[in-house]
Amino acid sequence: MKDGNIDIYIIPSTDPHLGEYIPDHWRIIAWLTGFTGSAATVIITDSFAGLWTDSRYFIQAENQLTGTGYVLMKPLLPGNKDFSEWLADNFNAGGKIAFDGRTLSIVRMRKIEKALEGRNVSFDIACDLISGLWTDRPPMPLSAAFDHSVVFCGKERSLKIAEVHEQMRKQNVNYHLLTSVDDIMWLLNVRGNDVEYSPLLTSFAIVGQEQILLFTDENKIPVKLASAFDKLDIVILPYEETAGMLSALPAGATILITPGTTSAALFNAIPQRMKIKEDVSIPARLKAVKNKTEIENIEKVMVKDGVALTRFFYRVEQNSGSVIMSELSLAEKLNELRSVQENYLGPSFSPVVAYNEHGALPHYSATPETDYAVGPAGILLVDSGGQYLDGTTDITRTVAIGRPSAQQKEDFTLVLKGTINLALAKFPAGTKGYQLDILARKALWEHGLNYGHGTGHGVGFCLNVHEGPQNISPGAGTDSETILEPGMLTSDEPAIYREGEYGIRIENLVLCFEDEETEFGQFLKFETLSLCYIDKSLIDILLLDQKEIDWLNSYHAEVYEKISPHLNSEENKWLKVKTDAL
Amino acid sequence: MKDGNIDIYIIPSTDPHLGEYIPDHWRIIAWLTGFTGSAATVIITDSFAGLWTDSRYFIQAENQLTGTGYVLMKPLLPGNKDFSEWLADNFNAGGKIAFDGRTLSIVRMRKIEKALEGRNVSFDIACDLISGLWTDRPPMPLSAAFDHSVVFCGKERSLKIAEVHEQMRKQNVNYHLLTSVDDIMWLLNVRGNDVEYSPLLTSFAIVGQEQILLFTDENKIPVKLASAFDKLDIVILPYEETAGMLSALPAGATILITPGTTSAALFNAIPQRMKIKEDVSIPARLKAVKNKTEIENIEKVMVKDGVALTRFFYRVEQNSGSVIMSELSLAEKLNELRSVQENYLGPSFSPVVAYNEHGALPHYSATPETDYAVGPAGILLVDSGGQYLDGTTDITRTVAIGRPSAQQKEDFTLVLKGTINLALAKFPAGTKGYQLDILARKALWEHGLNYGHGTGHGVGFCLNVHEGPQNISPGAGTDSETILEPGMLTSDEPAIYREGEYGIRIENLVLCFEDEETEFGQFLKFETLSLCYIDKSLIDILLLDQKEIDWLNSYHAEVYEKISPHLNSEENKWLKVKTDAL
Repeated sequence: MKDGNIDIYIIPSTDPHLGEYIPDHWRIIAWLTGFTGSAATVIITDSFAGLWTDSRYFIQAENQLTGTGYVLMKPLLPGNKDFSEWLADNFNAGGKIAFDGRTLSIVRMRKIEKALEGRNVSFDIACDLISGLWTDRPPMPLSAAFDHSVVFCGKERSLKIAEVHEQMRKQNVNYHLLTSVDDIMWLLNVRGNDVEYSPLLTSFAIVGQEQILLFTDENKIPVKLASAFDKLDIVILPYEETAGMLSALPAGATILITPGTTSAALFNAIPQRMKIKEDVSIPARLKAVKNKTEIENIEKVMVKDGVALTRFFYRVEQNSGSVIMSELSLAEKLNELRSVQENYLGPSFSPVVAYNEHGALPHYSATPETDYAVGPAGILLVDSGGQYLDGTTDITRTVAIGRPSAQQKEDFTLVLKGTINLALAKFPAGTKGYQLDILARKALWEHGLNYGHGTGHGVGFCLNVHEGPQNISPGAGTDSETILEPGMLTSDEPAIYREGEYGIRIENLVLCFEDEETEFGQFLKFETLSLCYIDKSLIDILLLDQKEIDWLNSYHAEVYEKISPHLNSEENKWLKVKTDAL
Repeated sequence: MKDGNIDIYIIPSTDPHLGEYIPDHWRIIAWLTGFTGSAATVIITDSFAGLWTDSRYFIQAENQLTGTGYVLMKPLLPGNKDFSEWLADNFNAGGKIAFDGRTLSIVRMRKIEKALEGRNVSFDIACDLISGLWTDRPPMPLSAAFDHSVVFCGKERSLKIAEVHEQMRKQNVNYHLLTSVDDIMWLLNVRGNDVEYSPLLTSFAIVGQEQILLFTDENKIPVKLASAFDKLDIVILPYEETAGMLSALPAGATILITPGTTSAALFNAIPQRMKIKEDVSIPARLKAVKNKTEIENIEKVMVKDGVALTRFFYRVEQNSGSVIMSELSLAEKLNELRSVQENYLGPSFSPVVAYNEHGALPHYSATPETDYAVGPAGILLVDSGGQYLDGTTDITRTVAIGRPSAQQKEDFTLVLKGTINLALAKFPAGTKGYQLDILARKALWEHGLNYGHGTGHGVGFCLNVHEGPQNISPGAGTDSETILEPGMLTSDEPAIYREGEYGIRIENLVLCFEDEETEFGQFLKFETLSLCYIDKSLIDILLLDQKEIDWLNSYHAEVYEKISPHLNSEENKWLKVKTDAL
């Protein structure tokens, strides 16, 4: 830093694609500080080293940073400051800020610029201080690409490319830069294995009207796939040449980029005189609406996933009080039960198997240090999902181990009312997620309760478990202006977290579909696709109205009908009781 | 236009303050085209003259423009285009667009610039082609200002000025330009009579740290008020000098402006090197939260207003079938009944007394040409309000004349469910209006029904009946990010419009207040302040749940308790029946 006259060096926790899951090669913060959470920013000056993360990681960060010299900064606590506010307070006019511009989005870059407006700051956005120091750095991932069959995804890549071209013409753009790997996977019907939890092949793409430039290691593309690409004018170029090719685009043309996932380095490579249009990417909008084949496959996947979960909870209940179970061993068991299902690739995120107070940490993942024995009496929250070639799942169930308390039953029932009332929503075309969010919260609010996260996120198809652009949450943000459309798959997951006691969350995936059309327009509804019983021992029936009871009974009838044929007779008998009408 | 080489001349329907109600002096479009609706834009080229307005005025504009040569453009109908889209399609690169920059906001100016980006357009923003032609133009309004007593408004102007100064310091701004007249009225505890429906005194203001420059005709300020202003360093300057004084502000300073209500002319007068901060004005945020005195006064006003309305509907029912009533005569009668109440200034907007299919036009105002006889059987929608020195009201009731149909009862009951469920909302501090909007729509949506406007608007205190920044509506817009705070007064007005048949709307004003604080934070609720019975003959009780019936019975008990002491015995007996428990 001294050699480069750098006053402040910034290290984000992201990789050049600015997505949720990143290869080990880019886990700089874990290597540097020991903190392994998924979201953080490190700032280093000559006299200070600090790490910012969000509330879900405070406890973990506090433990992992002890003795490292890194100060944990908690942006959400009073008295502490947001990272750009800290910059504004601690930056001396005329100073120099440096970072590796490949891993910082232009949205964040602009936020920093805004915080330091008029302070005469100079930026070095091509400063990689890490590569030289990190001698045992893991290499860039090298998994092989594979074709994602039309049997699964339902639409030839040629047709998808034609759709993207059509949208580009409508939007008057000549080029479209794709930085989110899942956009590229969807467009080209290809998958890889470069990161945990999501079947991605690290790559960039520039979609032009004639060609698609795919930037990735060509050794990762099998011959047959390469030949299929070739026929569609998909040209494979080295990953490192993305910026170079961008800078060679014709200056008079217009390029569409997505600011949240475009790095400062790539943005700066775009020729000065090129016109830049910023918006959600076209593949992101198109892939959010699942096609008929995808929907049919998801419905089948839900049966497989539901069978695994049912067997899992059957074993939890059978073992309870006799066999010792721990959070970690249960997580392993659940993955094992999923892995015998057809077309299973692996978990879609780090599973949350959280007993009692661990359940109050929304993103808790057990480690050998934190692992709890489960039982004899308490609340077990299990949030997990699978990647299958024919779909991606994400489901949360909370069950009682032993006899629940009255407060636990009240909390559970209020959360369940939220899950049900969002699932029952009927709304006009054009409705946005934030309009519906309250349906999942209303019963909780009426009792002075709430939860601090959104209610629903989009879910990919054999792709990222968290996928935009739609969501169902209390508000704002770029994505919240996205309209809910028939074919969109979204989670429905209200919750309550009692710190130091337990957490309750009930999550299903719901599919948006067309209901009646009246003189007041087209109306839409949701269909709940996830299939797993809801623990009736946690329900206080007096808190449910008839509509809610009807929903639950009909849901349970469907669960039994679809899951029971795949169970043995013991499991079957057990599920019958679990799904009997209230 | 030829003399100035002007290709396109734009005339907005606004005055230099860009608010809702404008003095006759600025009703250029009405003079030019004959169209008297409140919102329109006229565009004139050498071969075309068109008028854009919104759907509520389509029928009226079609009638009023017949034979004038002006083409009615309907931006919301398919095939027609938004006014800036039209500009983009019809503008020849290198051309010149002119308008009177005093009456076009910079928000609209920017929209035009964006639509014509890269088209080499030259603007003449100081082009007044009207004044020279309009020989019998009404003069600028000349009403006298009067002091708005602290007895009514609850806070000395010196304290309000100190609060604004404090906010300016917090926001690091040296000057604050006030263009919305109601902001100035609130800040200085002054009212006038320059426009219909709102007690405003046409003026601009620049708030500095030492002085407040008030731009208005000094002849309008009585001596006593002028002397009170003088003591607080409020300097009265000629209205026409606003731009000149703006241009003389120190270049290094920062000024806070509100883009939606700042004209292009004033914006251009701000010195180039001055820093400009754009946001909702400080008075707008402060005055939205009513103080204790204001709230007590509003509660008293609601009784006065409720008495007038009760007498009105009593007469409607007594006369029904015997005395001939028309929409116009009823509107007059209602105003007469309000005008005998203490501190009444006049209607707060043009009353909607709309019988049968007229009720399906949300902003219908009867004229001699459209006037309907009311009766013998149908639906009467009455949306009206009053300006009182001690508050502003806005209330809608829909009543059956004769025996209503089953569909009318179902529609009415679903709308009522909306009014009630929004009124019953309990929500955490930090909630925004768009999160609650669905509560007013849910019952309608479930039956495939909807309404095309927002659910709630803020209401001023002896000021504009439509006041920001908060609202309760399905979405977006600058104001929708405003948090609902204790002390805010907002309307709650779901509706249904059956074109060609009838309209139903039930509107109350609700006050936000603090409910319980739990470990999950502070919760807020609404209190319904408007006091007038709801027509039970239109209710299908089978559609109401117990919570809704309880709300209605308790509301009716309160209405009877507060209104009946002011009625004669006949009216009293009648109201007793109208408010008897369901």
